[in-house]
Amino acid sequence: MKLRRLSLEDYKRGILEQNKVVLSRAITLVESQLAADQILARRLIEELLEHTGNSLRIGITGVPGVGKSTFIEAFGKILVEKGKKIAVLAIDPTSQRTGGSIMGDKTRMETLSLEPQVYIRPSPSGSSLGGVSRKTRETMLLCEAAGFDLILVETVGVGQSEVAVREMVDLFLLLMLAGAGDELQGIKRGIMEMADLLAITKADSGNEMKAKMAQAEYRNALHLFPPTESGWIPASLICSALTKQGIDKIWEKILEFEQFTTKTDWKNQNRQNQNRAWLHETIKEQLEIMFYQNPDLESLIYETEEQVAAGKRHAVKAAMELLAFYQK
Amino acid sequence: MKLRRLSLEDYKRGILEQNKVVLSRAITLVESQLAADQILARRLIEELLEHTGNSLRIGITGVPGVGKSTFIEAFGKILVEKGKKIAVLAIDPTSQRTGGSIMGDKTRMETLSLEPQVYIRPSPSGSSLGGVSRKTRETMLLCEAAGFDLILVETVGVGQSEVAVREMVDLFLLLMLAGAGDELQGIKRGIMEMADLLAITKADSGNEMKAKMAQAEYRNALHLFPPTESGWIPASLICSALTKQGIDKIWEKILEFEQFTTKTDWKNQNRQNQNRAWLHETIKEQLEIMFYQNPDLESLIYETEEQVAAGKRHAVKAAMELLAFYQK
Repeated sequence: MKLRRLSLEDYKRGILEQNKVVLSRAITLVESQLAADQILARRLIEELLEHTGNSLRIGITGVPGVGKSTFIEAFGKILVEKGKKIAVLAIDPTSQRTGGSIMGDKTRMETLSLEPQVYIRPSPSGSSLGGVSRKTRETMLLCEAAGFDLILVETVGVGQSEVAVREMVDLFLLLMLAGAGDELQGIKRGIMEMADLLAITKADSGNEMKAKMAQAEYRNALHLFPPTESGWIPASLICSALTKQGIDKIWEKILEFEQFTTKTDWKNQNRQNQNRAWLHETIKEQLEIMFYQNPDLESLIYETEEQVAAGKRHAVKAAMELLAFYQK
Repeated sequence: MKLRRLSLEDYKRGILEQNKVVLSRAITLVESQLAADQILARRLIEELLEHTGNSLRIGITGVPGVGKSTFIEAFGKILVEKGKKIAVLAIDPTSQRTGGSIMGDKTRMETLSLEPQVYIRPSPSGSSLGGVSRKTRETMLLCEAAGFDLILVETVGVGQSEVAVREMVDLFLLLMLAGAGDELQGIKRGIMEMADLLAITKADSGNEMKAKMAQAEYRNALHLFPPTESGWIPASLICSALTKQGIDKIWEKILEFEQFTTKTDWKNQNRQNQNRAWLHETIKEQLEIMFYQNPDLESLIYETEEQVAAGKRHAVKAAMELLAFYQK
């Protein structure tokens, strides 16, 4: 079924009226590869900017198996009870080889998704990290304009996407499992250093002691890290999505973080810095696209690369000559 | 005293005649900020390219205090005895605030520097990592053209410069101290994952047992990492620059690595990939310089950044508009 194309005004009004169907279509526009769609999406976002920025943006990550979806279900439920409107953006790192999805096709967060105050949107990451970044940030802005109080950005903790998400949220929550070897893994990958809050999941079914020990261990490890830029001291908590224990405590810590960073103006400054960085990243990305997609240069770039690889030409001199040709 | 300016031919002949004074002046040319010097340096390197590539390039890193200079003295001595010609390039991360140097002004590697077969050159890193990269790579090529068999690139293991050095050498040697906490530090910073060879230093003066334990610990840790791209299994060794124990063994391992990577053609492929990456890095760097140093854009970029930071304009849309203006 082909949908009628919406106008800029249709999109804008629909989103401000908190119409989820229009919101979904606007996100599809943001994700579209078509130049016309992208131009419309950018205009829409600029028009909606004055209605954005009023949410708390939370990044949630953890290795596969840590129970992110189950946690978000339990966490979301509590927030809904408190009258919050929640958008969950799940970045799904689509496997490039198969086109398949790590997260699986089955509907996730089934109970939570039924709540009228909740909006859940999986966000295919595609092949480029820059792409994820742009789409997720733009989607976040659309959700804010649609009146959501909390935006949860969920990533599978398997690599670089955490760094990208850290750059677009106010608070970064790392979920961890109590268990052999995980401690080291988390530390090794440097993700722990990005966390404002660390929660050990699955503290239930006889696992409570192990979780408490892990909590102490992480608390010690957090002391080894340099202080965070915000001045906030990262906390280590335990919880169970099954028994709901500790989930409330996590929300309290999040509120404490928000109060602290509002008082110090870090929340505001951090967002300003994130916006600046986003501008410059986009510029860099586009400068490269303009150069590498220039049809006049294609074969010249290829030849130059082969000569440089073979050690027949000096990389820097060859680069300068390519650029001189490009500028003409 | 003002030196006579050398011509391209003077430089070329002097380097091929293995004249250390001319080599030093050529490196100064490479390090110069003057456009005229940089053009001459690039031409010189391109002319010398056919005489490069015949050395083994070794990156050596480790935290301050691990004894890098002492190790290189002892290691270099052994190589000199074996008839090798050695160039040592020490990347000295100049403090940006004070302009002072971490490595200190006192002459280092005093004995080694007296050997006629040895050339030692500190390389001020300056403020940009891209800058270090280019200067050190170009200096390395000049040293190769001057007939050195081994190029040792030494960095202080304090951060990103290791990654840059890893991208320009054949083999990466990580020096480590046996001692509390260091294990974790090395793992955390991800440097261990880049090492082809790991050597625990200062295994002397009653420290031998601790070194042996650390060796076993590192050996286990190395197994946790994914296999290296080259197919080589990183080795963990111990040594003492004081008693000279274990230094020979390190040289044997290095030779083993060279044989292995020559047989598998990795050495060659790796260098080709490094050259390719160098070309594209230079292109990206220059594209940004061309954009950001464009005087017509200066105030526009500034204004745009302020508007984007304040959330008044959409970063992506603003970037696109800046780029459209730039292209005109």
